[in-house]
Amino acid sequence: MGPGGAVSMSPPAAMLRAMTLDRLPTPCALVDLDRLERNACAMLERARRLGVRLRPHVKTHKCVEAARIQTAGEHDGITVSTLAEARAFAAAGFRDITWAVPVALDRLDECAELVRRTDRFRVLVDHPRAVAELEVFAAAQGLRCELLLEVDCGLHRSGVDPDRPEAVAVAAAAHGSPHLQLAGILTHAGQSYRCGSRAEAAKVAIHERDVMVAFAGRLRAAGIAAGEVSIGSTPTVTAANDLSGVTEVRPGNYLFFDASQAAIGSCTLDELAFSVLATVLGVYPERRELVVNAGSLALSIDPGPVHVNPGCGFGVVVTTTGQRTIPGLRVVSLSQEHGVIRSDRRLAPSWQPGSRVRILPNHACLAAACFDRFHVVRVSEIVDEWHPVRGW
Amino acid sequence: MGPGGAVSMSPPAAMLRAMTLDRLPTPCALVDLDRLERNACAMLERARRLGVRLRPHVKTHKCVEAARIQTAGEHDGITVSTLAEARAFAAAGFRDITWAVPVALDRLDECAELVRRTDRFRVLVDHPRAVAELEVFAAAQGLRCELLLEVDCGLHRSGVDPDRPEAVAVAAAAHGSPHLQLAGILTHAGQSYRCGSRAEAAKVAIHERDVMVAFAGRLRAAGIAAGEVSIGSTPTVTAANDLSGVTEVRPGNYLFFDASQAAIGSCTLDELAFSVLATVLGVYPERRELVVNAGSLALSIDPGPVHVNPGCGFGVVVTTTGQRTIPGLRVVSLSQEHGVIRSDRRLAPSWQPGSRVRILPNHACLAAACFDRFHVVRVSEIVDEWHPVRGW
Repeated sequence: MGPGGAVSMSPPAAMLRAMTLDRLPTPCALVDLDRLERNACAMLERARRLGVRLRPHVKTHKCVEAARIQTAGEHDGITVSTLAEARAFAAAGFRDITWAVPVALDRLDECAELVRRTDRFRVLVDHPRAVAELEVFAAAQGLRCELLLEVDCGLHRSGVDPDRPEAVAVAAAAHGSPHLQLAGILTHAGQSYRCGSRAEAAKVAIHERDVMVAFAGRLRAAGIAAGEVSIGSTPTVTAANDLSGVTEVRPGNYLFFDASQAAIGSCTLDELAFSVLATVLGVYPERRELVVNAGSLALSIDPGPVHVNPGCGFGVVVTTTGQRTIPGLRVVSLSQEHGVIRSDRRLAPSWQPGSRVRILPNHACLAAACFDRFHVVRVSEIVDEWHPVRGW
Repeated sequence: MGPGGAVSMSPPAAMLRAMTLDRLPTPCALVDLDRLERNACAMLERARRLGVRLRPHVKTHKCVEAARIQTAGEHDGITVSTLAEARAFAAAGFRDITWAVPVALDRLDECAELVRRTDRFRVLVDHPRAVAELEVFAAAQGLRCELLLEVDCGLHRSGVDPDRPEAVAVAAAAHGSPHLQLAGILTHAGQSYRCGSRAEAAKVAIHERDVMVAFAGRLRAAGIAAGEVSIGSTPTVTAANDLSGVTEVRPGNYLFFDASQAAIGSCTLDELAFSVLATVLGVYPERRELVVNAGSLALSIDPGPVHVNPGCGFGVVVTTTGQRTIPGLRVVSLSQEHGVIRSDRRLAPSWQPGSRVRILPNHACLAAACFDRFHVVRVSEIVDEWHPVRGW
């Protein structure tokens, strides 16, 4: 049992590392290290070509080892989604961290601790109340806090509306404070997940950039320097051709990719680095169905890219080596520990209880969060085991 | 860090217990102990009245403390969904355990260990291959294994089709083995989750019972005694009026209940014992929306009872004491760490970053699995902290 954490009743790590892939207890999470390294290199190269800094998001994998590969071993700036990630990655040597969710005002003490422990810990704001409370807090703590103003470029989730005068007013309040430093502006074009192709995502990328560059211009006109112009989402960064005026990008999913990203054109299926290994529990020839032991607690129940492929189901079924899609199989439903796979043809007699498959999940960020450990493989050889951060 | 488990970077348990509810870091999981105890008592009483044994499923909460309340401190028989649960509950003194998912043939060594460590460890089969492999395995281990034959009573997930001759043949194979003991038959009428009312669930309960009693009769006619006739799902057990011929029931969700169970009539909203405490991060009056820090990693993304209420959203928003639904608010979308709540009226000015709400999730089994700890409360007082089992 971890310190105050959940009870872990799994076999010990040493035992698992000594295992071969075909002996691993299922369901379990596999990370294909060859693919992950290729995805990491490709994004570093893409950022270089586009002339922007890559500040990768670690929320998809939440593993220090993966972040080191993302930053090519340099421990450069990263993006996190939780304070738990920030603490763990700071403890592992990452000293430049952006928490890319609007700051929770009841967790400022933990933010102060991170400001003290790192070289740079930036938090997001999009509301005058947050700026006012941060100012009082920073003054009381004797700290100078770096803020990024979140801008809504079309997702309509969080962020100021850049067309409203309040947007500049929030920036001005931060800019004018002796205890705060407005480091720049940040957006996430999450609407790109609803695209149907790379070409559509490229259009969203242009819009994302244009909104941010225009807003940075309005801030400058008001006498406010927004040094950082930060954008980020795997579909837009993957599809962008010109990021003039942008200083940094924050994609995260790209390191694993997933079935949704493949469907919307960010990658191909053979670039997917995360999968779930599962065992067939039951075979139902009359229904042309198999039941496997990967349910909604192993794959999550993200409905996937239904806007591109209404029949996508809950993941793509591939062979145990992960190299080949098995034609005609579809994960049609999930319950807590059962996944139902339907075949569009008669089931081959080789399907028996005990057979195994890998499933490429619809949404790697959610599926990865189902697991306390990832088995890291090169093709079929287990080469490492990584432990993601959990909680908040 | 646990033994081979995920890295836990949360504040220590002792610190949390000393906190009051309004100081707990969010998002976090709350268990209302008064409601949970009432739900446990009501189900024990219901089982007594129906003349069946209650073998509660622990998969919703996965906490030893909760299972002790479910079994009124007697450590009576329980149902588990994973071998990890079986190991943890056996270690805590539960000696009569049914693993209610068809046995995975690549995990028989772990089953043998549980047969040795408990008084009774039953596994499910629904395929002749599973019976054959279990027989060879049990003979080699010098064990006698108790099996339950899973029967499909209409969910069409796992289980034999009771109307096909193969169903009796699988039972006969188990019955005839010196190394196996066919303890009985088991079903799960999960189709009851698609009901729209308690009256509809009562009809499914009648069907579930009738299918099982008729199949037990066919087995007896073939000379096979099916001692245990086990049914179970919270909607059917909650709605059933007559379970003649049934020996045990295995509901699990009832201990927490959830917004889906309330919508289909298994309970009322004021019986829900599990909730997620969240903090408002952003306020967007022009869209009448709030963003809270409970996203799909805190609530899961179960679409909920859309067949009853297409606009149900991703949970019910209640006050921080959990006592009252906040009218007009709906969780309209979730991303990894953001929950978007929309109001059907102008947002009151009291909504500010830092405000707090509780959310009653659509599906407590999936939402509870998002957390490594539950804060146990009586109204607003924190009285305990429970650590659910994770993994497989």
